[in-house]
Amino acid sequence: MFAEATFSLFIRQYPPNRGFLVSAGLEDVLEYLEAFHFSQTGLDYLRSTGNFGDDFLQYLKNDLGPFAGSVRAIPEGRLFFVNEPVLEITAPIIQAQLVETFVINQINFQSLLTTKAARCVAAARDRVLADFASRRTHGTDAALKMARCGYIAGFQSTSNVLAAQRYGIPPSGTMAHSFISSFPSEIEAFRAYAGSFPDRTVLLLDTYDTIQGAWHAAEVGRELEDSGHRLAGVRLDSGDFDSLSRQVRQILDDAGLGYVNIIASGGLDEYQIQDLLRAGAPIDHFGVGTRVGVSDDAPWSDMAYKLVRYDQMPVMKLSTDKASLPGGKQVFRLQTPEGRFDRDILACADENLPGGEALLEPVMQDGRRLGSRPHLDDIRTRLGQDLARLDGHYQRLYNPPRYPVTLSAQLERLAAQVQERMPDAP
Amino acid sequence: MFAEATFSLFIRQYPPNRGFLVSAGLEDVLEYLEAFHFSQTGLDYLRSTGNFGDDFLQYLKNDLGPFAGSVRAIPEGRLFFVNEPVLEITAPIIQAQLVETFVINQINFQSLLTTKAARCVAAARDRVLADFASRRTHGTDAALKMARCGYIAGFQSTSNVLAAQRYGIPPSGTMAHSFISSFPSEIEAFRAYAGSFPDRTVLLLDTYDTIQGAWHAAEVGRELEDSGHRLAGVRLDSGDFDSLSRQVRQILDDAGLGYVNIIASGGLDEYQIQDLLRAGAPIDHFGVGTRVGVSDDAPWSDMAYKLVRYDQMPVMKLSTDKASLPGGKQVFRLQTPEGRFDRDILACADENLPGGEALLEPVMQDGRRLGSRPHLDDIRTRLGQDLARLDGHYQRLYNPPRYPVTLSAQLERLAAQVQERMPDAP
Repeated sequence: MFAEATFSLFIRQYPPNRGFLVSAGLEDVLEYLEAFHFSQTGLDYLRSTGNFGDDFLQYLKNDLGPFAGSVRAIPEGRLFFVNEPVLEITAPIIQAQLVETFVINQINFQSLLTTKAARCVAAARDRVLADFASRRTHGTDAALKMARCGYIAGFQSTSNVLAAQRYGIPPSGTMAHSFISSFPSEIEAFRAYAGSFPDRTVLLLDTYDTIQGAWHAAEVGRELEDSGHRLAGVRLDSGDFDSLSRQVRQILDDAGLGYVNIIASGGLDEYQIQDLLRAGAPIDHFGVGTRVGVSDDAPWSDMAYKLVRYDQMPVMKLSTDKASLPGGKQVFRLQTPEGRFDRDILACADENLPGGEALLEPVMQDGRRLGSRPHLDDIRTRLGQDLARLDGHYQRLYNPPRYPVTLSAQLERLAAQVQERMPDAP
Repeated sequence: MFAEATFSLFIRQYPPNRGFLVSAGLEDVLEYLEAFHFSQTGLDYLRSTGNFGDDFLQYLKNDLGPFAGSVRAIPEGRLFFVNEPVLEITAPIIQAQLVETFVINQINFQSLLTTKAARCVAAARDRVLADFASRRTHGTDAALKMARCGYIAGFQSTSNVLAAQRYGIPPSGTMAHSFISSFPSEIEAFRAYAGSFPDRTVLLLDTYDTIQGAWHAAEVGRELEDSGHRLAGVRLDSGDFDSLSRQVRQILDDAGLGYVNIIASGGLDEYQIQDLLRAGAPIDHFGVGTRVGVSDDAPWSDMAYKLVRYDQMPVMKLSTDKASLPGGKQVFRLQTPEGRFDRDILACADENLPGGEALLEPVMQDGRRLGSRPHLDDIRTRLGQDLARLDGHYQRLYNPPRYPVTLSAQLERLAAQVQERMPDAP
């Protein structure tokens, strides 16, 4: 009843200051497609709206079936660029259309969050990063996925314990201001905490005054040493991190506590981290939350899911600024003799470009996943490898140049042919 | 074992261009608190991390119990301002701390999204707005909640059918570009759609060329008239909406289709809507998505959840730029003789200010909800009433002045006393 269609998911423009995006969200899409169905409650609701005829509702109930399509995708953790399909779905058109919202939703926001997190990792050089974003992400789904995106990007841990459990990410906790406020004095709070976690204590310094907090921390740090332990760190959570970190470092060093790490948190993202480290601020770890968890400077992309092939025929859309290219596609990544990324060629799905690495891989066939679920650490490694091969200027935090993506001769010809034969072409 | 604590949820600074926020998210918080518990799986996971002693894990398992606290809150749909607690929780400190992340997460992002949506409604004057955001919100939780936030703000409908079902919001559908691309020509696609939904057809004009699309729409509109129906609308989804809407209006009017609505969608938020309507663009409905669903220009606030009272004693935090005020509080809203909002007074929880309306209401006692779940339409009405009473300059889209919020004499005195007695005060 419904002919086969291919839809392609891609961005048309880079969000501000972005020169690449990181593929993320595919696992959730595949899980969703495997579980795709209409519940009786859902069908009853659709009927109650009065918008649909009995024939169509019967079709949804009896004939739509589980998702029976095929999916090709750029694996999670790999880089993709403008106009490159990060995913293509081929299925009866009604199935391919019904899954559109979820597919865009998950891959768009997870790719944005992973990209933002990867920029933080780059800015932080060898410093350790932890995800503190759960309080300010947009909802609980985003909080869980942010932890996963951060880990893919290279974060060491997450403060979201459910995400840590679900995804196998190291959990990390922090001392709260309210813990300190609940004691008669700061140093009593510090001592109580150090007593509970003598080998993993990070003291939060700014509940009253950061410098005074550092003196208290130094005192508790020496007490821990006397009992055979070591203070793990102190955390700055407000104020001028550059100046405060230097003063706190001096206080700790003067107390013989040179091994105590300084952690900074509070409104940080890649821009502040880069500035602090370039200025030489002695900060060892960063906790990043709010700005990263909402991809503050780029909370959305124009990621679109467009019909490119229908009933064996390539199709395209010509809308102003929103044109799409026809047919299923493949992305070939070419490298330099030194193994660095040189440029990408966007080609037709059936092309074979010798020397180019084909990025889209079959991940689902006839509604069934191909291969086993990838391990999160492998996705993380993949991203590290891709970034190591992408020239640094494409990774600049401000106004990176465009990585070259060109069209294959075959795709160029196809686009010209399709445009020519389109009855509504101007 | 754990003393009673009161935590207060508030923003310290307005996000850019905001002069008020709308309370939203409380229903989800109350549902969460009612269901609060540790599962055996969760406890097993915590044990497996090796971070916690047996005593504590036993405590969580046997003694923590369900949430047994009390909640006072500014009801959903009401306006709140800087430093005003939108919610206060009083509970054994461990319970109040454990729920922090969820409480901030839900109320922060839902208040931001509802505020953004309310700004769109104001900019759109009497035009109809529909929520199209699900594809670009940050995750599925945000997609569902955005539909609800939009409806509270005054949107007419949502394209998220699950949200429509769950919250009782009118669903609205749209024609997709892929529907049109799957036909040999645009006009055939238009005719097929009009055949299925003769009284509710909105034709999407920009798949190939908007003006040509308008000619096709006019033709199909006349055919619908001939068969006793009326074309409901046409939709612009790209290009220069001001110029295109005028040209399309003219084409429709010339065809005797003056009743056909023009809908615009694609990257719109309150700023573009205001500009288009001020310029006189003949647009009747707006579909808003991406920018509203992520609160593009203000994707986060500094909403914080701070301990203000512990074991019968008011406490406060003095951190640079992040100070908090001590004790449980009440917000009193004073009005002018004409019934407009005049100013707010932030007071201690036990104060009574004659002539002021107390905004925080008890909504949960000993872990049980007080009163019945409010109807979404009542929340929507409440917001409409509040906005009608807030002077227009506080609702300006750019750089609104600050609505006056002052402290009661009693709260001022309390803050001075607490600061004085704090052992760590500088």
